[in-house]
Amino acid sequence: MTYSTNQTLRSPENKQFPQHLFTRRSVIPIGNDVLWRIDRGIVRTSTWNENGAAITLGYWGLGDIVGHPLSKVKPYQIECLTSVEASIVPPNIWHEDINSLLCHIQQAEELISILHRKPTSLKLWQFLVWLSEKFGRDLEQGKLIDLNITHQDISEVLNTTRVTVTRLLQKFEEEGKILRYKRSIVLNLPPKLTRGQLD
Amino acid sequence: MTYSTNQTLRSPENKQFPQHLFTRRSVIPIGNDVLWRIDRGIVRTSTWNENGAAITLGYWGLGDIVGHPLSKVKPYQIECLTSVEASIVPPNIWHEDINSLLCHIQQAEELISILHRKPTSLKLWQFLVWLSEKFGRDLEQGKLIDLNITHQDISEVLNTTRVTVTRLLQKFEEEGKILRYKRSIVLNLPPKLTRGQLD
Repeated sequence: MTYSTNQTLRSPENKQFPQHLFTRRSVIPIGNDVLWRIDRGIVRTSTWNENGAAITLGYWGLGDIVGHPLSKVKPYQIECLTSVEASIVPPNIWHEDINSLLCHIQQAEELISILHRKPTSLKLWQFLVWLSEKFGRDLEQGKLIDLNITHQDISEVLNTTRVTVTRLLQKFEEEGKILRYKRSIVLNLPPKLTRGQLD
Repeated sequence: MTYSTNQTLRSPENKQFPQHLFTRRSVIPIGNDVLWRIDRGIVRTSTWNENGAAITLGYWGLGDIVGHPLSKVKPYQIECLTSVEASIVPPNIWHEDINSLLCHIQQAEELISILHRKPTSLKLWQFLVWLSEKFGRDLEQGKLIDLNITHQDISEVLNTTRVTVTRLLQKFEEEGKILRYKRSIVLNLPPKLTRGQLD
C-alpha cells in the first residue's frame, strides 16, 4: 500500500477520523462500503471501456466524498493527481454528510451537461471554466489551473481525442483566452463574468 | 398548476407525505429546497444549451429522488413522461433517504460512462440495456421498454442526432437485436447475459 496513517490530523469538520496519506499518481483502495472524504489534494475517479480507454467520471478536491458506493460503474478507480490526504467516512455517519453527497450529485450532473456542449471548443472552454471555479487560484492575469493535467487527461473527460485538445488549446492561446506555462493554464476571465455564468 | 393533492395515498416507505398527481408531459414545480420522491410513473430531468437544444440529465422512476438541490445546472426541468405520483421530501428528513441519494449518484455516473461509449451504436445499445434494466418488463420475447420515448428523446440523452438514432434502431431491428411496435422496444436479451454484464 502506498499510504500511511496519521492519527493526529483532523478532518476539516473536526471529526477525528484517521487520515491517510497518498502519494501523487497512487490509487486509493476501494471497497463496497468505503467512502473517502478528501481533506487535501485532488483525485480523479474513472472507469474504462472494453478497449481500455479511460473514462473520467469526475475531479474531486477538499471536502468532496468519493468511493465505490457512489458508483455502480465497474471498473472504478480513484487516482491521486497530487499528494492527497483522505479519511474514511464510516457508513453509520454517511447521513451526516448529506451536503457532500448533494454536492457530488450536482457535480456529476454538471459534467453531463458539459459533455453535451457543441462544438468541442465550447465543451473544452466550459470544462476549463468549471475546473477554474473548483480548483483555480486568482492571479493578476486570470484564474490559474495548476493541476498538472495532460491533454490526454482532458480528452478522457470530454470524450474527444488528445490531438483535438492540443489543437483547441493552441487556438485559445492564440486568441488570448488562455496563457500556458508547462501544464498550467491561466484563464483570461473577468471574475464577475465567470461567476455570473455559473450562478 | 397541473397537479392535485391526495392526502390518503402513501409513499412506498409508508411515510405519509401528501401525494401530488401530475399528468403526462406536465412539468413538476422546482424550488431551491424542494426534493421530490417519485412514487409512480417516470420523469425526465433535463437542461438545455444556448441554442435551445435539450440535454437529458436522467430518467427516474419509483423510489428515485429528483429536484433542483441535486443539480447546480440551470435551466433545470422535471418533466413527466407518464402520469406521475410524487411527494415532497422535507429538508429535515433528507438524511433519512441516504440510499435514494446514493442511487441518484450511481445513475448519474452510469450515464456519464454510457455517454463515452464508441461507436454510437454501442452507446445506444448500452443505453437501451440500461433503460430495460431500470424500467423494463420481462416478456417471452425479451425485455419490453414501454416508455413512449421518441427517437428525438433518445438523441437528447446520447448527444447524437435523431437521424442517427432512427438509423441505428432500424439496423438493430434488421439484426434481430430488437423488436419494435409503435414506440415500444423489446430487447432480445438472454436474461442471464444482461445481469452478468451489469453485476
